[in-house]
Parts: sequence; structure tokens; C-alpha cells
Amino acid sequence: MERIAICPGSFDPVTNGHIDIITRGARIFDKLYVVVLNNESKHPLFTVEERVYLLKEATKGIPKVEVDSYGGLLVDYAKKVGAIANIRGLRAVSDFEYEMSITAMNRLLDQQLETFFIMTRNQYSFLSSSIVKEVARHGADISELVPEVVANALRDKNK
Amino acid sequence: MERIAICPGSFDPVTNGHIDIITRGARIFDKLYVVVLNNESKHPLFTVEERVYLLKEATKGIPKVEVDSYGGLLVDYAKKVGAIANIRGLRAVSDFEYEMSITAMNRLLDQQLETFFIMTRNQYSFLSSSIVKEVARHGADISELVPEVVANALRDKNK
Amino acid sequence: MERIAICPGSFDPVTNGHIDIITRGARIFDKLYVVVLNNESKHPLFTVEERVYLLKEATKGIPKVEVDSYGGLLVDYAKKVGAIANIRGLRAVSDFEYEMSITAMNRLLDQQLETFFIMTRNQYSFLSSSIVKEVARHGADISELVPEVVANALRDKNK
Amino acid sequence: MERIAICPGSFDPVTNGHIDIITRGARIFDKLYVVVLNNESKHPLFTVEERVYLLKEATKGIPKVEVDSYGGLLVDYAKKVGAIANIRGLRAVSDFEYEMSITAMNRLLDQQLETFFIMTRNQYSFLSSSIVKEVARHGADISELVPEVVANALRDKNK
Amino acid sequence: MERIAICPGSFDPVTNGHIDIITRGARIFDKLYVVVLNNESKHPLFTVEERVYLLKEATKGIPKVEVDSYGGLLVDYAKKVGAIANIRGLRAVSDFEYEMSITAMNRLLDQQLETFFIMTRNQYSFLSSSIVKEVARHGADISELVPEVVANALRDKNK
Amino acid sequence: MERIAICPGSFDPVTNGHIDIITRGARIFDKLYVVVLNNESKHPLFTVEERVYLLKEATKGIPKVEVDSYGGLLVDYAKKVGAIANIRGLRAVSDFEYEMSITAMNRLLDQQLETFFIMTRNQYSFLSSSIVKEVARHGADISELVPEVVANALRDKNK
Repeated sequence: MERIAICPGSFDPVTNGHIDIITRGARIFDKLYVVVLNNESKHPLFTVEERVYLLKEATKGIPKVEVDSYGGLLVDYAKKVGAIANIRGLRAVSDFEYEMSITAMNRLLDQQLETFFIMTRNQYSFLSSSIVKEVARHGADISELVPEVVANALRDKNK
Repeated sequence: MERIAICPGSFDPVTNGHIDIITRGARIFDKLYVVVLNNESKHPLFTVEERVYLLKEATKGIPKVEVDSYGGLLVDYAKKVGAIANIRGLRAVSDFEYEMSITAMNRLLDQQLETFFIMTRNQYSFLSSSIVKEVARHGADISELVPEVVANALRDKNK
Repeated sequence: MERIAICPGSFDPVTNGHIDIITRGARIFDKLYVVVLNNESKHPLFTVEERVYLLKEATKGIPKVEVDSYGGLLVDYAKKVGAIANIRGLRAVSDFEYEMSITAMNRLLDQQLETFFIMTRNQYSFLSSSIVKEVARHGADISELVPEVVANALRDKNK
Repeated sequence: MERIAICPGSFDPVTNGHIDIITRGARIFDKLYVVVLNNESKHPLFTVEERVYLLKEATKGIPKVEVDSYGGLLVDYAKKVGAIANIRGLRAVSDFEYEMSITAMNRLLDQQLETFFIMTRNQYSFLSSSIVKEVARHGADISELVPEVVANALRDKNK
Repeated sequence: MERIAICPGSFDPVTNGHIDIITRGARIFDKLYVVVLNNESKHPLFTVEERVYLLKEATKGIPKVEVDSYGGLLVDYAKKVGAIANIRGLRAVSDFEYEMSITAMNRLLDQQLETFFIMTRNQYSFLSSSIVKEVARHGADISELVPEVVANALRDKNK
Repeated sequence: MERIAICPGSFDPVTNGHIDIITRGARIFDKLYVVVLNNESKHPLFTVEERVYLLKEATKGIPKVEVDSYGGLLVDYAKKVGAIANIRGLRAVSDFEYEMSITAMNRLLDQQLETFFIMTRNQYSFLSSSIVKEVARHGADISELVPEVVANALRDKNK
């Protein structure tokens, strides 16, 4: 049996914290779909297409990873690709509570999909897409926080 | 002495978690006013009138409950109806901190109104109006999460 | 119908924070049983008899309060006195999680007993029996933290 | 490649919450070692042998599960059995912080072992071995909280 | 060596909780720059100029305090004025996590600036600019929550 | 005016996380007293004398630091040495709540002593004396977690 997992998120844009979680998750499964969720109400900085492109570039070297996007319910996407597991990164207590309610809801909608949480490495525990966008907007050096392709894309957006 | 309590909220829309709290609160008091707070800055999906209607339908079978709406300060409403207690549901840690600051502020404004917190039943601890609206928007089955009249109203909104 | 509530705890010893909760709870119910739980595994500083005595002295002026002790399950005590409500004070997040699991267990054991949480007043939010014992042991002035009868009892214990 | 995982704990005794996590974890991996950690400083109610016996009885029907015990560091056990993943249940915020520090320490000691957290089902989110022991000691009915073999063992201990 | 600190915030408007933190911080340092951060995306009620004016009036009596505003990154402002310390008030757990990620980011950007957290006094632990604006909008008495000049400014805004 | 601060703790034994906080605190003040609190009820692994010795060795290279021990109340020690500030490290939410109640109590006992919290560096956020003792007991390599003199002392204790 092939073990397939998904790793959903906004990825607006992908950070080194996300890459850490994707790398860890991909080690355990036969295939890991990284899925950009198309949530327009959040007013993203990058379009879905841009976010998919940046993820593809940033995950090139990680085996078994496929990048995709989806506009519907996560459980429907999981069924479509035959995933048995949903991989989520955990940073802090506020993450934790939000993730608990999302997981409970997903379980109600699909009993078969299991959610696994992976702790981010300590040095990324403060890192979020929004904090990266904020400091990039002020011209700070973000090369340690995001993949190079993302650093360049942020520089272009802020010109 | 008649013991009157209030149970305020946005109720946009009322969920089975709310109904659980209202049922528990109504058991202890002689009258429980369920009050739709009119907070326009939150961009509600349902109008105040719709939310009052859905609450009235959903609480029909619960004795001692009266549904109302109010646009001012909670403590002023409590004084108006002669309430000695304010009933609030508690789900998670993030709820808890927000509720603590609201309660502290209400105490400052009215020393006589006591706030009582009731824990939601475990199976509703992840449930919120916003998560219900999100999954309903994608066409998922929400019949276990909200009263039937609300499930129908959400289906109509999302058409 | 007479509305009876219980307010259980170790009360080793009772503090002004406890008195605040007892006073608030007693305002809403017809009778409030304050119950010293006999948990020997906690190595209490005061015996059950001493704790009951201190509580009786400290709650003399609060109408509708009766002090008692019990060695069994809380839900059995509630049934014995005919209580419909269990009153608990809430201070901080760590309190909150512990109380949630106790409440869930009590609900499983007795569907009829409702637990109500009351927030401690801000100035008592840091106060606990153990912190009072610790500073009293070093001879600090605790007259603002506990009823006078408790301050005297602590002074005697630390001689 | 065979995917092997471990699921460590005190299991003093195993509860239905543990069984829920073990069942979910075993679905994803080829083999799941459930390991009783031999931590004498916690003054367990059941001996290691008793806890292993109860776990074996309770997990009989779950495929791919093997029960074992260990007295050393978790990372050494993981190396011994060739595990790539460590499965942990998550209930509440206090769990979460403790698990974060254990995970960070394990990562320092072994870069290869990945820790996955699984959320307990809502109805078990309040359940712990210590709360089960406490209510069993008072003779309460615990048949919904633990496997039958454990309920019997607790009854024998409390005679 | 002169010890210079900064105390940044939105201050929309300054509350008695802020004044408490500023007073405590100013006691330890030779100079404390209170800095209004110019974050337009938050849709402030008061303009930067109004917030600076209210802060200047409210901190008149506190020695060593200077009020300023800034539109860039905090670490750049700290370098400009030669600050070695950044003073932040802490109220609740949700504050704490947000502050941890901001501090981690600031450390990455400037190793020399040390962030010190000071706990707000208990009676201000529920107080926030947004809760003050909310109750003021409904005409409640806020004279215990904010400096007099702010109470007057809020009254004018709500006319 | 000389600015004196204290940094109290059990230090059983001192870790690299403590050294990080001490180094940061010493940068801001003219003198920093690191004080081993003599709390026998915690059953320390090292005696007060051993803990003082290990701290002295480990802080040799940090200017302005003096190591001491004390058996009474922290506020009395602060008065004795003329300290205006109390430096505490913050790691996680559970730390935070405990520290809030200690700080509130200290404020009640001494209005003049200000408590400053410093966040531990990310890589030490999981580190505690008890976790170090636990892994050292099993013979794991702890050279990245504690000063060399402490690693040696732990090796001797565990022989």
C-alpha cells in the first residue's frame, strides 16, 4: 500500500519553517502533496499561482513532494488524492488550539483522514509568513528566514 | 425573588454548542434572556433580525428562555431586565483570556452583575459559528453541528 | 424549588480569594455548601477539622453559607445535599485546564450537576493557599491575603 | 522499507484515550511498539509487568501492535527497534508544552527520530490515568473510560 | 554610560496600563523613549499626531520620558537613539506568545537590543486600548481606565 | 546611582539557558547578584554549596556578576543588597503564569523591586535543570546543554 499524505496551508509565502515541516513529513510517507489553500478572504500578498511556483522552486530538492492548490474543503482534496494523513506544523499554544478545532471538524467530515502534528524546529518557532512580510516591507534582511527564491520575490513585491 | 440571567453573543448563527450552554443555564435560573449583540463591525452573515428568528426557532423547546437583541453595553441591558447573572460558554484557553478581560470590564461598570462560565460539552468544544459558516460554504453536511432551522438558513445563504 | 450549590476545595487554608468566590456564589443560590475535600495525599498543613473551623469563622458574615467536609467523590456529596450546581473559582489558564478535566469527569458521573466557574477578582488572581503558606513561613505580613483568623493560625503553625 | 514507530508512556493504567491513539497510529505504520517506560520515581499503582499485561490484553484486537517495556532513554529504545517515528497523544495546552520540551530534547539526542502528535478524540480529551485511578478509588463506574481488563484490575487493587 | 531604553506601541490611545509600564520602566533607565509606531493597516482611531500629543500630556509628570513616533522597523529606531533595551508590558498568555515571536525576530535583526518584559499591575491586566474604545463608544465612564486628557479626547471623538 | 539587580533560582544545576539569561541581564545593570534559593522541600540533587560553586565557575567570564545564596524571602534579599530589579527568564506559557503570581506577591511585599522578564534564546526554550538531570542519569551527552564544570559534576553524581 502506498502511503500518501497532504500538507495544506496558505504559504503566503513559504518560509524555512514550512520547508522544515515538509522535509520531516516527506521522510515518513511515500508521497506528500503540499497544497496551497485558496482562501481569498485573507487578502494574500501572492496569488495562488505565485505561491505554487515559489513552493515548487523551494521544494525541488525534497524527494516525494508534489505541489498543488485547492479551493474546496481539505477532506475533499484528501479523498481525491487518496491521502491517509494530514501533516501540520505546530509552533505555539495559539496554533495548537486553532489546529485542535480544525482537526475536530475534519474528523467529523472524514473519519479516515488522520492529522499528524510535527513540532517546528526551535529556531523557526517564532517564524510566520506574516512576520516575514512585515520585516521584508521595511527592507530588513530575511535571507535566513525564507528560501532564496522567496527572498527575491519579496524584494520584487516591495519595490 | 425571581432569578434572572442573560446569555449574550453574536449568534451568527446559533450552533448546537450555544444551545447546550443555553439549556444548562436555563436549568438554574427562573428566566434566561438570550441576547443578540448588534456588533456591525464584525460583518455578520445574518442580520440581527435573522439571528433572533433562528434563535427563537432553535430554543422553542427550552423552558424559561426569551430571545432579544441589544445594541448598547451589556451591563445596561442587564440592568434593564433586572438580571443578576451573565452566562457565558467556555471552550478553550483563547476563549478564557478574552472572557476574563470582558468580565473584568463588566465588573468595573456594574458591581452587581455576576458572570458565570459553563464549559461546553466535549463534543462541541471545537465548534464555532465561523467554522460552521466556513464548512457550510463548501457544501459540507452540518446537520450535527447546528439546529435544523439554521442548517436550512445556511443552505439558502450559500445558494 | 430551593436552589442548592456546593463549593468544594482543599482550603488549606482559606484565602481572601476563596472568600471572594464564596460571597459571589452565595448571592445567586439559596444555600451554598462550602466543602473541605479530605485529600490526605496532598500533605495538608491544617487538619480537616482545623480547615473547617477556619472556614466557619471566616464565612460567619456571609448569609446562606454552610461549611462541611467530605472524603468521597464530589458528585456523591452533591447528591446527598441535593445540589444542582458546583461553584468553582477560576484564576489562570493552568486552573482552567485542570478544571475542564474535572468538570468533564463529574459530568460523566452525574449528568444533573452543573459546574459554574466564577472569575476571581483581579487583585486575587495571583493568590493561592500554597503561596500564602510559603510567605507566612518566612514571617511576611499576610493580613491583606487571608481572613484574620487564618493569619493568626498561620502565625501559630510557624512558631 | 518497513516503517516502524514507537508509542511510549507510563500507561498506569492504559485508558481508552491511549487505545484511541494507539489505534490511529497503528493505521499509518507497519509496526507500532507500545512501550511502558519504567519510571519508578512516579510511584506507579501497577508494576511494569502488570502494565505490560494490561496493555497486551487491551490491544489484542489492534493489528501491527507489539507491547514492550524499557528502563532507559527513549531514543536508545527507538534505535534498538529501528523506529523512524515516535507517536504521542495530545490533549490540552499543558500537555503540549511538556511534549514540546521532550521532543526538543529527543531531537538533540537523535536527529533521525521524528515525533508525531495525534489529537485525542474529543470525548477522551479530559481523560488521564490519574483521574481514572482517583475515581476508581472511590468506587465510581469507570467502564466507559478504560478497557474491561483494566476496570477489573482497578477493582482488585481497590479492594 | 547612559542607559537608554525604548517603549514602543500603538497607543491608540494610551491607557493607565501603559502609563503603569512607562512609569516602571523609566525608574530603571536614564532615558525612556516612548514611541508611537505608525501602523496604518490597523485603522487607528487617533492619528499619529494625536496619539503623540495624548502621550506627551499623560507622561508630563514622569521624569526621563520622551515621546516620539516612527514608521520603520523597531530595531532601526533603537539604533538611531542608541537604546540598549526595549520595554514591553505583559498582560496575558496571548500577549506572551505574540511578544515572544516579535522578540525572536528583533533579536535576529539586532543582537544588541535586549527586550525586557514588565508585568502590568493586576488591576490593569484586562485593560486594552480597544476595550477602552468600545466602552467609550457606548458612553460608559472610563475615568479610571485612562488619563484625563484621553478621556476627554474619546468623548470628543464619540460626539 | 549604582543599578543593582538580582537573578534568583534553584540552579540545580545551572544550565546554558540560565547562563544566557545571566549574560543578558548583566549587560544592563552595574551589578547582578545571582542567588541560589535554599528551598529544601524540592529535594535538590546538589547542595546549596555545590550549586554556588558550579555557578561561580560557570559565570567566571561574565563581568559584574556575583554569586550568593539565601534562605529567606526574595524581597528581603533584594533590600539587603540594595537591588532595584529582579531578573527572570521566561521560556513557555507555564513559566509565565507561575512567574506572574510570584511577581504579584513580591510586589505586595515590596513596592520598590521591579521584576524584568527576559526571553530565553530559542535553542534553550526547552531546557530545564530537571530535564538535564533526567538525560544525564541515563548517560546521554549533555555537553551542549550545560557548562563543562556542570557536565563533569553530573557525571560524578551519576557514577
